Amino acid sequence: MQTTTSLTLRQALQHRIDNKTKPLGALGRLEDIAMQIGLLQGTTDPQLVRPHIVVFAGDHGIAGTGLVNPYPQAVTAQMVLNFLSGGAAINVFCHQQHLGLIVVDAGVNFDFETNSNGFAGKLVSKKIGYGTRNYIETAAMTSEETHAAIEAGKQVIADLAAEGCNCIGLGEMGIGNTSSAALIMSYITGIPVDECTGRGTGVNDEQFKRKKETLQQAFSLHLPAITASQSPLTILQHVGGYEIAMLTGAYLKAAELKMVILVDGFITTAALLLARSMDSRVMDSCIFSHCSGENGHAKMLEYLGAEPLLQLGMRLGEGTGAAMAWPLVQSAVNFLREMADFESAGVSKGGDI
Amino acid sequence: MQTTTSLTLRQALQHRIDNKTKPLGALGRLEDIAMQIGLLQGTTDPQLVRPHIVVFAGDHGIAGTGLVNPYPQAVTAQMVLNFLSGGAAINVFCHQQHLGLIVVDAGVNFDFETNSNGFAGKLVSKKIGYGTRNYIETAAMTSEETHAAIEAGKQVIADLAAEGCNCIGLGEMGIGNTSSAALIMSYITGIPVDECTGRGTGVNDEQFKRKKETLQQAFSLHLPAITASQSPLTILQHVGGYEIAMLTGAYLKAAELKMVILVDGFITTAALLLARSMDSRVMDSCIFSHCSGENGHAKMLEYLGAEPLLQLGMRLGEGTGAAMAWPLVQSAVNFLREMADFESAGVSKGGDI
Repeated sequence: MQTTTSLTLRQALQHRIDNKTKPLGALGRLEDIAMQIGLLQGTTDPQLVRPHIVVFAGDHGIAGTGLVNPYPQAVTAQMVLNFLSGGAAINVFCHQQHLGLIVVDAGVNFDFETNSNGFAGKLVSKKIGYGTRNYIETAAMTSEETHAAIEAGKQVIADLAAEGCNCIGLGEMGIGNTSSAALIMSYITGIPVDECTGRGTGVNDEQFKRKKETLQQAFSLHLPAITASQSPLTILQHVGGYEIAMLTGAYLKAAELKMVILVDGFITTAALLLARSMDSRVMDSCIFSHCSGENGHAKMLEYLGAEPLLQLGMRLGEGTGAAMAWPLVQSAVNFLREMADFESAGVSKGGDI
Repeated sequence: MQTTTSLTLRQALQHRIDNKTKPLGALGRLEDIAMQIGLLQGTTDPQLVRPHIVVFAGDHGIAGTGLVNPYPQAVTAQMVLNFLSGGAAINVFCHQQHLGLIVVDAGVNFDFETNSNGFAGKLVSKKIGYGTRNYIETAAMTSEETHAAIEAGKQVIADLAAEGCNCIGLGEMGIGNTSSAALIMSYITGIPVDECTGRGTGVNDEQFKRKKETLQQAFSLHLPAITASQSPLTILQHVGGYEIAMLTGAYLKAAELKMVILVDGFITTAALLLARSMDSRVMDSCIFSHCSGENGHAKMLEYLGAEPLLQLGMRLGEGTGAAMAWPLVQSAVNFLREMADFESAGVSKGGDI
C-alpha cells in the first residue's frame, strides 16, 4: 500500500514530467524510468552518480565435464585477463559511456594477483574457491560458501556505495553458467528445464541435446532437497555458482541502499529471481536493460512482468546489455532535470481547437 | 549486384567481427550495424566523425485552420526558440551524447534573426517562406519552392560534410506535419489514408475523427495531379512542407556522400519514402533508430523492410529517436575498432567438446 508521501511524490513527479516542453507522454518509456528513479530516490530531482558495471566471474564444476559447454573452462580466466587488459566488449562499452568497471573474482580457477597490472578498472578478489563442485554429482557449493558469497556480493556493492555510486549494472562471466541459470529458472518459475535451456555460447544441435539431457538429470538429482527446504538459498547452493551467489547478494544490498540497478541478461536475471524470492522489494530498484538472444531470457522477463528497454539480439553477458541501456537511463534523468517547462520556455500548451 | 570488391570487403568485415573475443554473433544487431557502416565507408576500419543532429523546422498552411492540430501553429516558432535557448528534449540528448545540433529554419512563420543569441548550436536560415499554403485548397508549395527546398537541404548536409561530419541524425519540427507525413505515406505505399493517420501531438477522439476526414479530403483533391505525374516530386509539392522537402534533399545528399544516416520517426521516415523513390541507394546509408509511438510509423518501417533499433514508445520528433539510438551505433563501430581478437587476447575459441 502506498503512503500519502509516496502518492504525493508520484503526483509531483508526474507534474514535473508533464510540464516539460513536449506533448504528454511523448518520451514514452523514458518517462516511466524517470518516474521509477524519482520514486526510488524519493525526490523530484533524481541524480545518477558514479555509475558502475560490476562483473562477477566464477568457474563451474560442470564445465570441467564438457557436457554443457563448447568453450573450455579456462576461458573464464582468459576472459577475466581480457577484462584486465581492456580488450573485451564490456571494456569498450564502459570506456565509451564513461562507466566505471569493477571485475570481481568470485571463484575463478586461476590466480590473478600478478596479472592485474595496467587494468583501467579494478579487480576485486572475493575468491570463494577455484570453481564450484560438479552438480551432476553433488551440490555445487556448501552452505557456508553460499552465505560467504552472498555476503561478499553485498560488500562489493556497499563499498561502491560508500564511494558515492548510486547506479550499477550487474554482469557476469563464467563458462557453464547458462546451465546454472536454466536450472535456477526452472526451480523458481516451474517452467520445465527443457524450455529454460538455451544454447548458451556456441552450442551446436548435438551439444544442445546433450546439454538439455544433462540439465534434466541435475534437476532431478537436486529436486528432493530443494522441495524439502522451500528456500531459494538451497537452489543457489545446489545448482548455482559463486558469481551467481555474489550477484544475488549484490541485488539485495543495492536495493537496500536504493541504488538503481540495470539488470543485464539470462544469468544475471536468474540471480535476480533468487534475490526477489528473498526480498521482493528488490524489484523497485530494477531497470531491465535488454532481452537477451539466449533462449529462456524472454520467458524469465515475462515471468517477472518486466519490459526490457532493448531487444538487440545480444547474448554476451559481461554486463554488456546493461552498458548499452545506460545512456537511455541517463537520458530519462536528464530530460527530467534539464528540459525547460512550458511556462519558462514560453511555449503554448495544446488544448481544444 | 555486388562487385567482387564489396564481396571481399564483406568477408573481411565478417572475419574481423567473428575474431573479436565473443561468441559468434553474440553482439546481435550491433554486428549488423558494424557490417553496414563498414560496407558504406568501404573499409574494415570505419569511423564516425563529428556526428550531428539536424532539425529542419517549417510551418504548414493546414495548421492555420486548426483542423488537424490541437497545438497552435505558433508553437513551431516557440519550439525553435526553445531549441535556441537549449531547453528542448533534443538539446538535452545532444548535450548528453556530445552530438552537434543544427537547427534549420526551412520556413517557419517567424523571424529568428534577433533571437539566436546564446544558442549552443547553430541556427541556419534557409527560409523558403512563412509557412506553406493550405493543401485543403491548393498545392502546399510551388514547384520552384519544392526544388529550392530540396537544394537547401542538400546544401546543409554538404556544408556539414565539408567540416568533416560523416554521420547525421535527421529531425523535424512543424505543427501539423504528421498530416503531411500521413498523406505522403498513403500516396507512396498505397495504404489507405485512414490507416496512415495518427493522433500526432495530443489529439482527442473527436479531433482525430476530424483529422482523418480532413486528410481524406486532401488526399482526393490532389490524387489526379499525383496520378498524372507519377513523380514523388509532385507528392512533395502538393502535400509536403518546406522542412519535409529539405529532409528529402538531406537524405539524397547524405547518401551520395556515403554518410551514415540515423532515421528518426514518422515525419522523417515519410521524407525518406520520397527520397527513396528518387534514389533507392539512399537506403544503404540508413539506420532506423526507433519505432515511434505515432500510429503509422510501424507500418512505414514494415513497408521499408526496416528493423528499428529502439521501441520506446517515443513520439516527439526533433530527432530525439535518432539521438537515443546514437550510442548504439557508436558502440557498433567501437567494438569493431577496439575489441581484442582471440589471438591477441590469448582467449580460446569455442569448438567441439
